[in-house]
Amino acid sequence: MKLQTEYNIQDIKELLKDDLKIINDLLYKTIEGHSNLIHQVGDHIFSAGGKRIRPVLSILSGKLFNYNSDELYYLATAVELIHSATLLHDDVIDNSELRRGRKTANNLFDNKTSILVGDFLFAESFKLMVKGNSLNALMILSKASSIISEGEVKQLELKEKQIFSLEQYLEVITDKTAILFGAATESSACIAGRSSSECKLLKEFGINLGLAFQIVDDILDYSANDALFGKTIGNDFYEKKITLPIIFLLQDSNDKEQEEIRNIFHSSQSENKHLNYIISLLNNKDIFSKCYDYAQTYIENALKILKNFPSSNAKDILENICYTSVVRKY
Amino acid sequence: MKLQTEYNIQDIKELLKDDLKIINDLLYKTIEGHSNLIHQVGDHIFSAGGKRIRPVLSILSGKLFNYNSDELYYLATAVELIHSATLLHDDVIDNSELRRGRKTANNLFDNKTSILVGDFLFAESFKLMVKGNSLNALMILSKASSIISEGEVKQLELKEKQIFSLEQYLEVITDKTAILFGAATESSACIAGRSSSECKLLKEFGINLGLAFQIVDDILDYSANDALFGKTIGNDFYEKKITLPIIFLLQDSNDKEQEEIRNIFHSSQSENKHLNYIISLLNNKDIFSKCYDYAQTYIENALKILKNFPSSNAKDILENICYTSVVRKY
Repeated sequence: MKLQTEYNIQDIKELLKDDLKIINDLLYKTIEGHSNLIHQVGDHIFSAGGKRIRPVLSILSGKLFNYNSDELYYLATAVELIHSATLLHDDVIDNSELRRGRKTANNLFDNKTSILVGDFLFAESFKLMVKGNSLNALMILSKASSIISEGEVKQLELKEKQIFSLEQYLEVITDKTAILFGAATESSACIAGRSSSECKLLKEFGINLGLAFQIVDDILDYSANDALFGKTIGNDFYEKKITLPIIFLLQDSNDKEQEEIRNIFHSSQSENKHLNYIISLLNNKDIFSKCYDYAQTYIENALKILKNFPSSNAKDILENICYTSVVRKY
Repeated sequence: MKLQTEYNIQDIKELLKDDLKIINDLLYKTIEGHSNLIHQVGDHIFSAGGKRIRPVLSILSGKLFNYNSDELYYLATAVELIHSATLLHDDVIDNSELRRGRKTANNLFDNKTSILVGDFLFAESFKLMVKGNSLNALMILSKASSIISEGEVKQLELKEKQIFSLEQYLEVITDKTAILFGAATESSACIAGRSSSECKLLKEFGINLGLAFQIVDDILDYSANDALFGKTIGNDFYEKKITLPIIFLLQDSNDKEQEEIRNIFHSSQSENKHLNYIISLLNNKDIFSKCYDYAQTYIENALKILKNFPSSNAKDILENICYTSVVRKY
């Protein structure tokens, strides 16, 4: 399937600017009038912008069914708050220094502040979900939150063992990313009062898109231009996280190369020259294309699911989000 | 008012052993079948026991209205899970080494694990709350979670400024402890279908008891026997937390002593001899009695609120919990 993009990410943001404004206002409302540090950290994380892809998916999943309500925006914002809380804690766990092109909160403030403000945003997300007024949607999103943190724990456990399989990789990225995409889309269908089979379709749509999204993120961690990507290149490498490019690289390497790669990832010291060596192997063996093709299979699944729904503006934009997800450079 | 205890904490645990068994089983069910680390950390924190005072208050607040249901136990367990998650994160924030007489999870495992398992337990608490099937109770408990984390943030901010007022101290302990007590009791009255004025009374009861409980905890941090208390003595001192004993000590000290105390708390280095000096001042000036009397005023408020409800076994036990709260040695 040849994917054609009509809109890029900026176009999509422009099309959805009224929705994004409502979400942004709700995000800022959660920190308004709260303690100084909460305000500073919240502003730091919200103003960095980010793609806001999760709340956008929530909104569009509601609109796909001609559903639009305050509750939809509460849920969408709650999803972004869960994501923001997770980012704050992840950056502490990974000791990250850059995020969305700016210093991370743990770097700018400290770990304690990031942990506590993460907890605060997480609690605020539940307050908004309660305002969403649907116990079913609440269950979907609280289950997702639980799976996300368990996914991070599993990733900690796997890092101890090192070099894992494609299957384990897919499990990790399902838990840490795709589940929240799926919860965002499913919970919207759910509050829109759709049938359980439609809710399940929307969940599958979100999960497939989320898998592709994370795979592309993992490709960009080795291939992106720092300034566009907004993170430091090689984060996963320095954190010894085994991602798809490395799994595919190992598959396409001879015994000697495999041993070298394994030694590099097992070594307690990571050097820039090792990162450069890995990147040169990835380029020479055309691994990035293979990874993009792999991500595209999930996008094709997602697009196929969308075919179940009648034409609409929302469907159009969702399709375009699918397209741009595998061609984005940041 | 002379407080008379009929039962001690162990007696109360014995009286409520069937309820505690259900709560314990629900706690373990949240970690059952999950990743190894989650199981280990969860077991570590649940098996340490603790007083389980929060879920006990939830259960008794339901029983006070002859209300008893699966949902009540879900909410009670959710409250203990919020508390457990908070403990895991607090111990990371405070770099604590001992809790309930055993090594803390961050000490036994590491900070990353404590942060992530804390997040997991927090998400699991929301899953249980959703099973509690009451949006009102969910709002009470998610608001409480938000206030708790903001309270911790405020405490971080205050520590920077040092030596604060009685008013600021009360604000901190309200947020970090009393609010969850109040949410535990209020949410039970709420799912029991009681009037909003009764729910509010139960909230006030919980808050007053929680304030007394935290004040006694802060007294014990300077006065307890390590082995009974289960924590290291002087934690607050080494973390430069200004608690009631220090606030009252400053009030009863002359200018020279005040300056010494302030210097000790402002100094970046804390030595054992300084802790011993503070403890000797606290003893010589009989500050502990003054603090206990202060805690007792909150207990008297709590007992007064209970008078609004008809006699029952639950009421009897709640009264006894009030009594034991200000005489406990751990």
